[in-house]
Amino acid sequence: MLIESEIKKRVSLFEPYWAERLTTRPPERLYDASRHLLLAGGKRLRPCLAMLACESVGGEARVALPFAAALEFIHCFTLVHDDIMDKSTLRRNQETVHIKYGEATAILAGDLLFAKAFEIMHDLSINPAIWKHLDYHISKCIVEICEGQELDAEFESRSIVSESEYLEMIRKKTAVIFKLAAYGGGLIGGGDESVTKALGDYGLNIGLAFQIWDDYLDISSTENVLGKDIGNDIRNGKKTIIATHALSRARGDDKKLIDRILGNPEASDDDIKDLLVLFKRLGSVDHAKKTAASYVEEAQRSLNVLPDSDAKSIMKDLALYTIQRKK
Amino acid sequence: MLIESEIKKRVSLFEPYWAERLTTRPPERLYDASRHLLLAGGKRLRPCLAMLACESVGGEARVALPFAAALEFIHCFTLVHDDIMDKSTLRRNQETVHIKYGEATAILAGDLLFAKAFEIMHDLSINPAIWKHLDYHISKCIVEICEGQELDAEFESRSIVSESEYLEMIRKKTAVIFKLAAYGGGLIGGGDESVTKALGDYGLNIGLAFQIWDDYLDISSTENVLGKDIGNDIRNGKKTIIATHALSRARGDDKKLIDRILGNPEASDDDIKDLLVLFKRLGSVDHAKKTAASYVEEAQRSLNVLPDSDAKSIMKDLALYTIQRKK
Repeated sequence: MLIESEIKKRVSLFEPYWAERLTTRPPERLYDASRHLLLAGGKRLRPCLAMLACESVGGEARVALPFAAALEFIHCFTLVHDDIMDKSTLRRNQETVHIKYGEATAILAGDLLFAKAFEIMHDLSINPAIWKHLDYHISKCIVEICEGQELDAEFESRSIVSESEYLEMIRKKTAVIFKLAAYGGGLIGGGDESVTKALGDYGLNIGLAFQIWDDYLDISSTENVLGKDIGNDIRNGKKTIIATHALSRARGDDKKLIDRILGNPEASDDDIKDLLVLFKRLGSVDHAKKTAASYVEEAQRSLNVLPDSDAKSIMKDLALYTIQRKK
Repeated sequence: MLIESEIKKRVSLFEPYWAERLTTRPPERLYDASRHLLLAGGKRLRPCLAMLACESVGGEARVALPFAAALEFIHCFTLVHDDIMDKSTLRRNQETVHIKYGEATAILAGDLLFAKAFEIMHDLSINPAIWKHLDYHISKCIVEICEGQELDAEFESRSIVSESEYLEMIRKKTAVIFKLAAYGGGLIGGGDESVTKALGDYGLNIGLAFQIWDDYLDISSTENVLGKDIGNDIRNGKKTIIATHALSRARGDDKKLIDRILGNPEASDDDIKDLLVLFKRLGSVDHAKKTAASYVEEAQRSLNVLPDSDAKSIMKDLALYTIQRKK
């Protein structure tokens, strides 16, 4: 797939950059824990998005690297803390940080990545007023991520969550950092207000599509392919778009099946499979896929105000990639 | 005590400021958890230090308020996460955040305070270059706090920790934020390089004295007076300056007593008292008090380069207060 080689090109710029700036130093255990998830790989979609957005307005990808690293550090910090909260054991085919290093060090490793994100932003050479504006947006973005994660956790214990509540939750939990990546990349590249706004809309929409697809993969993929626990959302009682759709439609035995499995930490792999069959029969999986596809189209439309460029065409493909990926 | 009324004056400026900027909003549970520790009181030494340092170079205390709030948010975020790591149940005479709201929300509440610290800095109206410089120092300070907390935790499972290792650990864990408070307050007030450096030295030294005194209070105070669990450092096996001193001197039965109680989560209140008697007999408590006093003197000496002012004289008293306080 062409898009994957275009991502790889930018990832190869990004990898040495972050790795040189977050080296192992004393106390080694803390730095090793902070680097663990970063070294385990990951798609680096947020850094790539920042670089592509920068290119799309005529900037150089490498100029956006400090911002790209800040985004990935923030993303990893939220994953490290999220895995503690969700009691996840596997991430990117590796033990999660709290399983490998213990919970105390995992909390600190997340905090360190958070601080390093703000520190590395000082490597960014752009107009100070724009720098400050971007720094402000980063802090606002993290506030929203925290709010989204809290809502996600609170929804676990609620029996009914509406689709609009779900969408607002994933906007905060997942989409705002995609929005920031594209918006900030555009700012760094010198884009004017109308263009950076369009880039922000693009990022927000692919973020929504990305999270819906993530929810779908959690029940439909395999642990080997996905590199993390499967069915964890179901066992934790997460109100994904699939679950909220099914809950609003199921009656009788179908309803009983959902009530027995959703939010049951002891649910077996077969239970998860049974639930997937039911979700498909109720049309909930199709509904999720269609909703994700509509956000992808919306994202692609947002790019229309941009002049044609390689970056623009890669970004259109990237939007589609968020709902075609296997992991 | 005069110093306490001077602190109170600045606290009364500070309280409405932070409270208006971190209000309860949805998701309420997260914001309530973030405000819990702030509402429980606390000495507000770091905000006061920032305001006093600003005044000491001719600035207005209120100009430093956003920075003062950022410092207190950072301090509270580290306490919330630290209490999870240390399994503490009481802080500022209240249940700790993770006991009251659960661990997941407590992790997020800490993260939110962290993000809010960077957000509120954008309320600060100073020269953009100085603003950016200060923002950089804040991120570096948090990196060091994380390193210090990791060292503190690692020292728990080590049998021997030297005094210089202990001092380096508390420099990072505790003193750097005092240093930042005084240095940053001076910067905001318009102090030149020699003066802000002196203020930083002052902050660092009172931070060291403060932590040594904290270690002393942990074994010598009562829960009611201190507002948090007593003897927790002992039960967690913390290598405080008192413990490291005693460990390097104890022989025979004394050594056995320390080995039995230090790091024993089941140690009774009587065990803690026995250990305090031993620590006193070995001269370890006196040693800690003398060391703290020498840092206070050093802090006061650092202020000599400043012109005489009310703020300067309050800061001299504040240095002494760090080792006279009962909580």
